[in-house]
This record gives sequence, C-alpha cells and structure tokens, in this order.
Amino acid sequence: MSTVRIRNAESRDEAAWRALWEGYCRFYEVDIGAAITDHTWRRILDAAAPVHAIVAENAQGRVIGMANYIIHENTWEALPVCYLEDLYVDPAVRAGGVGQQLIDWLVAQMPLQGWSRLYWLTKENNYRARGLYDKYTPRDPFVRYVVKAKK
Amino acid sequence: MSTVRIRNAESRDEAAWRALWEGYCRFYEVDIGAAITDHTWRRILDAAAPVHAIVAENAQGRVIGMANYIIHENTWEALPVCYLEDLYVDPAVRAGGVGQQLIDWLVAQMPLQGWSRLYWLTKENNYRARGLYDKYTPRDPFVRYVVKAKK
Amino acid sequence: MSTVRIRNAESRDEAAWRALWEGYCRFYEVDIGAAITDHTWRRILDAAAPVHAIVAENAQGRVIGMANYIIHENTWEALPVCYLEDLYVDPAVRAGGVGQQLIDWLVAQMPLQGWSRLYWLTKENNYRARGLYDKYTPRDPFVRYVVKAKK
Amino acid sequence: MSTVRIRNAESRDEAAWRALWEGYCRFYEVDIGAAITDHTWRRILDAAAPVHAIVAENAQGRVIGMANYIIHENTWEALPVCYLEDLYVDPAVRAGGVGQQLIDWLVAQMPLQGWSRLYWLTKENNYRARGLYDKYTPRDPFVRYVVKAKK
Repeated sequence: MSTVRIRNAESRDEAAWRALWEGYCRFYEVDIGAAITDHTWRRILDAAAPVHAIVAENAQGRVIGMANYIIHENTWEALPVCYLEDLYVDPAVRAGGVGQQLIDWLVAQMPLQGWSRLYWLTKENNYRARGLYDKYTPRDPFVRYVVKAKK
Repeated sequence: MSTVRIRNAESRDEAAWRALWEGYCRFYEVDIGAAITDHTWRRILDAAAPVHAIVAENAQGRVIGMANYIIHENTWEALPVCYLEDLYVDPAVRAGGVGQQLIDWLVAQMPLQGWSRLYWLTKENNYRARGLYDKYTPRDPFVRYVVKAKK
Repeated sequence: MSTVRIRNAESRDEAAWRALWEGYCRFYEVDIGAAITDHTWRRILDAAAPVHAIVAENAQGRVIGMANYIIHENTWEALPVCYLEDLYVDPAVRAGGVGQQLIDWLVAQMPLQGWSRLYWLTKENNYRARGLYDKYTPRDPFVRYVVKAKK
Repeated sequence: MSTVRIRNAESRDEAAWRALWEGYCRFYEVDIGAAITDHTWRRILDAAAPVHAIVAENAQGRVIGMANYIIHENTWEALPVCYLEDLYVDPAVRAGGVGQQLIDWLVAQMPLQGWSRLYWLTKENNYRARGLYDKYTPRDPFVRYVVKAKK
C-alpha cells in the first residue's frame, strides 16, 4: 500500500480536488456544470454544512485521491448516517490502496462522529471498485429508483 | 383508485402512523426499538427537522397509508434531494392505488419544494412494490453497500 | 388451486399449444416466425428429440397451460439437466396454481428421469412469475451473456 | 495479446485439461468428483457427443487455457445454441488475452457450425471475467433458478 495521509479537505486543496472531481465526472460520464461544482466546493468548506470531503496526500504532499460525503438523518436509527457519495483516486496511482485508505478513514470515524451507518452506491458494472468494496461487505439486496425533477 | 387525501402528518396522526410503522417494520423483518421510533416521530413533528411524513386519509377520515422522507444535500446538484425512506399502506386496502398516490404527491412537490431528485430503494425481490415503482422509472443500475457501526 | 391434470403434450394438443405459445411470445415481445414454431412443435412430437412439452388440462378437458423443456448434457454432472425454457398459463386462469403444478410435475420427474438439475431463467422484472419461482429456491447469483449469430 | 493457437481438445491434452479443470473447480469452490470429471472428459473425446472442449496452446506448445461447451436445442430457434459452460486460463498468464481468444474462436464458429446463439453465465461478482464479457455484449436482464435433484 502507498503511504498516504488522509485528512479533511481544506481551502488550499481546491485545485487538486477540482482536478480529481473532473476525472470522477468523466468516469461516470456526467456533465456537472461549473455552478454546481462551485456550490459543492463551497459547501465542503462551510464547517456548518453536512457536506464534507477528505483527501489522500502522498509522501510528497501531493493530493492523489478524494472522497465527498454527506451526513443525513434517517428514520431507522436515532444517529445520522454517512453517505459516501463520491470517491476518486488519480488513475496514475490506482491499485495502490488509496481508495481503501479513504474508506478505512470513514469507517474509523463512525464511532467518533456518532454515525450509525456508512453507505455508498456504485454502478453494478464498476468492477474495479466493487472488488474493493466487497472487502467491506457484500452489496445489499436493494435496488434504487430515481425520479429527476423536470428542468 | 380509492379516493384518498394525502397530507402532511400531524400530531393527531401518532397512533395511526405508529400502527402503519409497525406493519412496515414487520414486513422488512426489522426490530426498530421504541426509543428510535419515538425519536423518529419527534423529528417528523419538528418543523425544523429534515425528517417528514405524509399520510393517506380515506373518505371516512381514517389514515390508511404513510410515507416518511428525508431531505438531504448532495454533491451532484445544488438543490437538495428527497429520499423516500419508508412507504406503507394498510394491507386491507392494498392494490387500491394508495401507494401510488403517496408517491405522486412527492413527485408533485419536487418543483414546489425545489428538490432536484426523488429517490427510494427497495429489496430486489419486493415484487409487489416494484410493479408500482416501475411505472415511474426503471430501477437504476446502482448497487448499495452498507457498513453498520459496531454496537 | 385449480384441479388440473399435467400430462405430456400430444398431437391433438396442437391448436391449444399454439394459442398458448402465441400468448407467451406476446408477453416476451418476441416475434418467433411460423417456420420456427412449426419446427419446435415437430421436435416436441418427435419422441427421439430432447425437446418436450407438457400441458395442463382443466376438469373440462381444456388445455390452459403449457411448458416446453429441453434435456441437455452438462460438464458438472454425469446426468443430464432439464432446462424449462418456456412456461405459460392462460391469463384467464392466472393465480390459480397452474404454473406451480407444471413446475411441480417437472420437479417430480427429476428422480424418475435421471435429471441432475432443473433450471429456468426469467426476466429480472417478471415479478408475477418470480413470486412463484421464489417458492422453489432463491434466484442464483449468476448473470447471463448472449451473443446472437449475425443473420 | 499472447500468441496462442486455439484448437479442439484431443486425447493428448488430457493432463493439461485436467489441471486447468481443477483450477477452475477451485475457483468456483465446487467439488466435482473424479467419476464426473472422467465422464466429462470421455464425452469431450466422443465425436458423437454434444460436449466439446477447445484449448489454447502457446508458442511453446503448452496448453494454457481451455473452454468446454455444449450444443443443445432450443424452442426459440430452429438452429441449436452453443452453451459455453466452462472457461479457464492458467492464472500465470492472466490478462494476456487468452480468455478472449477462446471466446473469439467460438464466436467465429457460429456461422460455420450453424449455431443460432452463443451464451454463458457467470457469477455476478466475477468482476475480472465480466470485464472481458462486457466487451461482447451487456449481460442480459435474466435471472436463473436452479433446483437440484435430491441425492
């Protein structure tokens, strides 16, 4: 495994976070406009918002991975849940364990932050990622339905 | 379709909501403790909380269905999303269109409330419910991973 | 459950079998040409062929359901397997247990005929049928890939 | 891609085929008894049987991969179908394109042999293999049910 340090994203990480976010959006073939990206980054930096990001920094101090997560309430637990919405690692350092260390950091935060569950979703055929995710738990037997607002 | 009225849950709906919630938990074979149920109901009544419930009232004024939903932020949209977490209809009035009217109400709220998406999850083999859900949209190709906090 | 008799298809069942086959093809939205239907029926009647059909006859002697199956070898077992390829019941008598009695007949044949396994496939969202199939066994964790010959 | 030659399995391939078959069974965590393995190998060598195998031979004449397939009839087509039941490549030469060349050989045989379809199944979470299979076609939307004979 690469020696990386996982820490909360800070203002100075903006350029690195944006570069990883762009790679992530290309991977999912989504076009998220600049206004939304700006908004998301502002929410991440806003200490009062439930939108957070962590970054993985290598031994040379370069940010090579990131994860965005949302804390939200739920009806099945009194404690909130942590939704790992986005996870991305620089393709140049793939398979080096960086993604796993980002998830491990979130798992370790669960008791510290008082989260009842950590969850994430991925495309059924995102095989590379699922090889990693299966190390934590089997996929659960739920399917998702999404209705988008009309523009 | 039954003639039902969909409206926000209110304090006076507590007994009916709890009876439907119990049936729902039995269906999913989960044992959600009294303390969490109390907490969830309090959050639903708290106008400042992002936890909400709607009920379906029949022509005789009896509550025969309910849905709980959570509003939370997300990184792909500037507007929040609506997570329909729980949906349940009294088995005695099943197949009468009550579930559909509860979902329809949420769909209609999307532009009014400024939600970018409405989503829900269900067990892959919850065939009766999926027959209804497929009328809105096909299931999406995502799978979910859930890590629970150690107790 | 309806009182039905399950028996091997015979020459006199041709009209009834064809009517059910047409309904089945409509359900799956496939257009199987007349030449192939003729071929399949000939194979069913040919005692030397591994293509077979059974029919469900009601108390009035009317054929209200049918199933086609193929016996083929496999590499994991010395005994052949039975592939239940098609199953269809007259929509007018649905939910009366006819489909189940057709499958039950095949299950009962397994030791008599020396089949090592009985299997079938269905569309993931064929919820009505899956409610029945789940009574026999959970779906297995396999996915299928099909490459069609170029015409 | 490795330079390999795909050809029909012959009597002299027995030891190599058995070694690959054992690795394959270990991968799927199945215990297929010696009697069945002997039976399957005999069927492969029997020119009159619908059980066939091909092998991948490298430039040094060593067999490094194999595939077993079954030809069987079906009711939706007049021509038989080819069921690729087993595919395995020596782990030492993985990711070298050998699996793809075995499948390509079968695809090329379709018009020559008069097969209407080529199909195979794999475990939903066999991610390495599915990365290859998705190059041919998306998985189809069918799920499988298997009832085993009581022993």
